[in-house]
Amino acid sequence: MATHKLLLLPGDGIGPEVMGEVKRLIDWLNAAGIAKFETDTGLVGGSAYDAHKVSISEGDMAKAKDADAVIFGAVGGPKWDTVPYEVRPEAGLLRLRKDLALFANLRPAMCYPALADASSLKREAVEGLDIMIVRELTGGVYFGEPKTITDLGNGQKRAIDTQVYDTYEIERIGRVAFELARKRKNKVTSMEKRNVMKSGVLWNEVMTAVHKREYPDVTLEHQLADSGGMMLVKWPKQFDVIVTDNLFGDMLSDIAAMLTGSLGMLPSASLGEIDVKSKKRKALYEPVHGSAPDIAGQGLANPIAMISSFGMALRYSFDMGDLADKVDAAIAAVLASGLRTADIKSEGTTAASTTQMGEAILKEL
Amino acid sequence: MATHKLLLLPGDGIGPEVMGEVKRLIDWLNAAGIAKFETDTGLVGGSAYDAHKVSISEGDMAKAKDADAVIFGAVGGPKWDTVPYEVRPEAGLLRLRKDLALFANLRPAMCYPALADASSLKREAVEGLDIMIVRELTGGVYFGEPKTITDLGNGQKRAIDTQVYDTYEIERIGRVAFELARKRKNKVTSMEKRNVMKSGVLWNEVMTAVHKREYPDVTLEHQLADSGGMMLVKWPKQFDVIVTDNLFGDMLSDIAAMLTGSLGMLPSASLGEIDVKSKKRKALYEPVHGSAPDIAGQGLANPIAMISSFGMALRYSFDMGDLADKVDAAIAAVLASGLRTADIKSEGTTAASTTQMGEAILKEL
Ligand SMILES: CC(C)[C@H](C(=O)O)[C@@H](O)C(=O)O
Ligand SMILES: CC(C)[C@H](C(=O)O)[C@@H](O)C(=O)O
Repeated sequence: MATHKLLLLPGDGIGPEVMGEVKRLIDWLNAAGIAKFETDTGLVGGSAYDAHKVSISEGDMAKAKDADAVIFGAVGGPKWDTVPYEVRPEAGLLRLRKDLALFANLRPAMCYPALADASSLKREAVEGLDIMIVRELTGGVYFGEPKTITDLGNGQKRAIDTQVYDTYEIERIGRVAFELARKRKNKVTSMEKRNVMKSGVLWNEVMTAVHKREYPDVTLEHQLADSGGMMLVKWPKQFDVIVTDNLFGDMLSDIAAMLTGSLGMLPSASLGEIDVKSKKRKALYEPVHGSAPDIAGQGLANPIAMISSFGMALRYSFDMGDLADKVDAAIAAVLASGLRTADIKSEGTTAASTTQMGEAILKEL
Repeated sequence: MATHKLLLLPGDGIGPEVMGEVKRLIDWLNAAGIAKFETDTGLVGGSAYDAHKVSISEGDMAKAKDADAVIFGAVGGPKWDTVPYEVRPEAGLLRLRKDLALFANLRPAMCYPALADASSLKREAVEGLDIMIVRELTGGVYFGEPKTITDLGNGQKRAIDTQVYDTYEIERIGRVAFELARKRKNKVTSMEKRNVMKSGVLWNEVMTAVHKREYPDVTLEHQLADSGGMMLVKWPKQFDVIVTDNLFGDMLSDIAAMLTGSLGMLPSASLGEIDVKSKKRKALYEPVHGSAPDIAGQGLANPIAMISSFGMALRYSFDMGDLADKVDAAIAAVLASGLRTADIKSEGTTAASTTQMGEAILKEL
């Protein structure tokens, strides 16, 4: 059995607590002889700042590059609101994405049937919802230069951010979306603002070309990002795979996640290109939710998104799709049994702490 | 009685039909001696392209600059999908915004009680909703330079868009938001991505300073635009006034509009600075909905957003707040009576054409 190297980066807030439940799962998989994971742990975000005055240390970056997959908790919190911009908690996450070249961010937005009523949308609009948002993650306005604030004198400053996209960046994220669609409902919706942005014009042009050349069997639709956002709110089930740029993806995937009513449950995967020689790809897995500093350290956090993110690691990094299916089924079964952490409790359900939820899922497995 | 000069720009698709109902209202106001409007009409968008191969002619731009207010329908449609980028229908609207310096876009998102069930959100989440989105309209990534596509050779192109904000641009839109909040529930929520964008850092800094210096009596909150979008979907009623940049405002205001279930009913105002000498400001009023080419010319369009936009003109350009209130009340009364255009029909309501709806509102007045 191959040994897989994992780097665990719990981060801040509820990060360490939810990561604890993944650790429990990993230990069990190792002990039961189902898989062989070697784990190391590092600091990122505010916790790295407190220890080393950086958002992630060079040592931990090296470990991340060396690992087969990084499992990431969450970063940030009011405690670090005033640290210098360059070392703010988020910078650690952005550096991981950029330096590991994790250009493809996969964010499934699905609605757990047991939680459909938690959505602010009507049940019929979200029940059975299962869409996949594919967000470009290493380009666009997140990383483009210049990115500056200049003092113009006279009390005036000028801030500049730059959105840059090259053809190859759009092509490769397009391919990820089309490949995923083939295994799903075979439909891709590309979203941009071609009526205002030159990057939208190029995005549209390249998606159309990749589709025509390499994936004519998949249905491709184009939507302006603003009306796409409206359609998402009105009737999310019309979508299968949505592919969009870094900033639109940030907004649209968060909104889609909230629509499901299952926000605390949703995982994500950030993937690099497959290396032709080793056939491996760099990858980072993290829950869609944030660090929730207000409930940290109280055993209140919901570990499902984190466990489900580890499930995505099994699927996308270690070719253990069957085991990933079992993890997903265990989560669904525990929810169906009525166990709930505080964020998703409702009448007639049984309260569970972070640990109790993690243990129940493991037991189900 | 002062004479007010209006330029009507019906545009494309359903634009001319819904503008027809505003014209009917204006004619009646003139005939009844309630106000004195002088109207002129021009071409914009696809209709200007068909006539003159431009998105708006120099003559019509001059008329727009000369008018006390521009009343704008809608632009665009598949017919013009392949016209050159510089003369696409949207370019006419963008030029009007920029050349008239209409930096403040006011987009009320309110839910007409009679239509609460048309929302994909649960009734309790949207009933009574009344928020105001204040979007910066002449800056940011819409107009920043460079804005280019460059051929890099080797089949590669590079697209660049530039987000630029200066202190004064953020200050003046902030003031608009704070002033509005004082007449409402006294709360402003500013949204940006300061954790990723330098323009977000400056936006946050300037809003905080304007608040402290000039509006300490108003409550100011800051949200990241992605989590702000989530909060909007989860519980929109927590907001009063939202102030944000051009691109985030485009996305967030469309999403907010869709949430209300009243999309076809929502108006908007785009305002310039008040001239110190004349005390006047340039202004353009337009419905939030688009040109809906699929239903154009069939008498199916809902004229309420267009009429309500004219109501905003009465309020913000002509200091006729009482008359604007009456227009709003007439719309609400007609809806309460059960009259519905096709887009909002439901069981037990009476079908109306564009004209019938316009006539009913006028009769109610
Ligand atoms: C934490 C932040 C930098 C990040 C982003 O904007 O990408 C987050 O919102 C996300 O979506 O993963
Ligand atoms: C038509 C288009 C250029 C415009 C925009 O992006 O601003 C529209 O979406 C709007 O919100 O008014």
